[in-house]
Amino acid sequence: MLDFTFRNPTEIIFGRGTIAKLDSRVPKDAKTLLLYGVGSIKRNGVYDQVRSALGKRTVVESGGIESNPLYETCMKAVDLVRREGAGFILAVGGGSVLDASKFIAAAALFKGKDPWEIVASSGATVQEALPIGTVLTLPATGSESNGGSVISRASTKEKLPFLSRHVYPRFSVLDPETTCSLPARQVANGIVDTFVHVTEQYVTYPAAAPLQDRLAESILQTLLEVGPRTLREPRDYDARASLMWCATLGLNNLIGCGVPQDWATHMIGHELTAFFGLDHAQSLAVVLPGLWRCALESKRAKLDQMGRRVFGVGSAEAAIEKTEEFFRSLGVGTRLKDYGVDAREAAGKLRARFAERGVRLGENGDIGADAVAEIVIAR
Amino acid sequence: MLDFTFRNPTEIIFGRGTIAKLDSRVPKDAKTLLLYGVGSIKRNGVYDQVRSALGKRTVVESGGIESNPLYETCMKAVDLVRREGAGFILAVGGGSVLDASKFIAAAALFKGKDPWEIVASSGATVQEALPIGTVLTLPATGSESNGGSVISRASTKEKLPFLSRHVYPRFSVLDPETTCSLPARQVANGIVDTFVHVTEQYVTYPAAAPLQDRLAESILQTLLEVGPRTLREPRDYDARASLMWCATLGLNNLIGCGVPQDWATHMIGHELTAFFGLDHAQSLAVVLPGLWRCALESKRAKLDQMGRRVFGVGSAEAAIEKTEEFFRSLGVGTRLKDYGVDAREAAGKLRARFAERGVRLGENGDIGADAVAEIVIAR
Repeated sequence: MLDFTFRNPTEIIFGRGTIAKLDSRVPKDAKTLLLYGVGSIKRNGVYDQVRSALGKRTVVESGGIESNPLYETCMKAVDLVRREGAGFILAVGGGSVLDASKFIAAAALFKGKDPWEIVASSGATVQEALPIGTVLTLPATGSESNGGSVISRASTKEKLPFLSRHVYPRFSVLDPETTCSLPARQVANGIVDTFVHVTEQYVTYPAAAPLQDRLAESILQTLLEVGPRTLREPRDYDARASLMWCATLGLNNLIGCGVPQDWATHMIGHELTAFFGLDHAQSLAVVLPGLWRCALESKRAKLDQMGRRVFGVGSAEAAIEKTEEFFRSLGVGTRLKDYGVDAREAAGKLRARFAERGVRLGENGDIGADAVAEIVIAR
Repeated sequence: MLDFTFRNPTEIIFGRGTIAKLDSRVPKDAKTLLLYGVGSIKRNGVYDQVRSALGKRTVVESGGIESNPLYETCMKAVDLVRREGAGFILAVGGGSVLDASKFIAAAALFKGKDPWEIVASSGATVQEALPIGTVLTLPATGSESNGGSVISRASTKEKLPFLSRHVYPRFSVLDPETTCSLPARQVANGIVDTFVHVTEQYVTYPAAAPLQDRLAESILQTLLEVGPRTLREPRDYDARASLMWCATLGLNNLIGCGVPQDWATHMIGHELTAFFGLDHAQSLAVVLPGLWRCALESKRAKLDQMGRRVFGVGSAEAAIEKTEEFFRSLGVGTRLKDYGVDAREAAGKLRARFAERGVRLGENGDIGADAVAEIVIAR
């Protein structure tokens, strides 16, 4: 087992009707920025529940956070926070709104010249942040219980993550009932996103960490079981609840303790989203099987194990096929042509970008620009 | 799935040589109470590592915390803390030392008349506590990452738990190498204790929580795999590390989120320890199989599942037998006669005590004094 430190201070408030508990969690003496997305919370009743729980608190609102939240949009909210003197941010929505709230919380107190440095430094420049609480309405990113955020910049077509212990939510309210009205595409994307979060921390090389392996497999097995049920029976509370808890535990740092981590699929996928507008999960569904085939020998032991324990098949190759089948069964295409993207063009753009950055990806640091192009061109 | 809240703020610092990191975690501006047990940390080098990491800090020491830490012993440390004005407690040892530190931390700031009220109120009267850090040297109780503590009182032969969010350790250092010199009996006890912590949160009734079930099974499976290895190969680092992480995750509140919990085995076992001096794990190994047989019908679905998934057997009855076999294979006896205790006498004493308390135990609240006696007399 590798050495590790683990700390996750977020309080999870999970279950039916839990939005009402905001009243005991959101400070009464600070002005609250209520941050949300493109309006679904106004249609499904979540907005009304939140406003009712906040009661007479002073609230300023900032809506319009888009999928793959933009630096440009976030900076408008940062201006609002500064102008209004907001002291607390309540993010209500999916991972995009939550990620945006983390950037805004850090940028509002950022002492440097350009808050984009927060992202460009991967979070290293964050010294403090406004306190954040969240109401999660879309299980997928794990952002409700981690210190990570991914921000895009329209002007440069960049999409980059940052991490900081200062941006963990103080609390996150998870009411599975709020997810029952989600469009199937978003639910399916959330299942794929969670699946890939787990495999990034699991399909690497054996590290004598049998408990961590089994925890990861537990989430994957549960996704296979409840994921399709959420799509088939949208109002099945228990399936929604399990999916939501899978998504949180998939990326709250726990299953990655003491084991190597990959994250190449995410880094490559981010670029497909930045250049071609694929949904985040779509980009992962495209990249993951290709990356696994290219890294087959170094990942064979773990893919074999996943095949055996999660899918009940006898080889690494079959495990990859089963994964693709699972994604497609949810309606998430696994090839670039499913999204009208030319693989040769994508490979060229990504080779150039990764060559420029000079990073080497994967748990062994052996995936450079040429390997990225090779993965993408085969998709 | 049941509703829940979950928050665990403890930082885990895990791996080889991590005791040195105390220097960056223990406050420099407070007098530290260094709390430990009956001296093994002085023989195995842990004490020297701790003192070296603490450097020039002002430290007062209190040793002599016994297994099943006594209120009477703790109160001497409380007097010391008050007299010396200690502002931080560093507990170095196993669950007993850690549990004691929690009581001392709460009692030192207790405003009521008699600090025993902390225990008698199950922790409800705790309003604040001194900050605690721990160096864990015995994987078993999970006390390194929860807000629970069990304190005994010699004068009344009581052994009772209390819980408080104020006594979570700020950090816990887990260096598996410190566990390599443990006596086999303590290692075996730790494996049994962890196993039973998991089953208290798992062998109840189905609650539509498939992820939680699998997380619990993950720990049980890993215990079956690495537990015997730690006894066979005492210096196998990876086995020690996995056992240590199993013990922490077995009782850090995570696997119990959203599912019913039992804890009757613990409550009955505590009394066997209080009256007859059995080791904590010995008492659990005696009670658990008996309790399961008495509650067979209400627990059958989960016992069947555990049998199938953890032991690869086909019935609840076989799962119970396999559990007993596992405990005995570790050298932990599962019958009262293994410890020279007369079952009839024990049943009588426990019936009287539980009748006096009037509590009803178990996830269904259906185990009263007569049922306790029935369980015990069959052991």
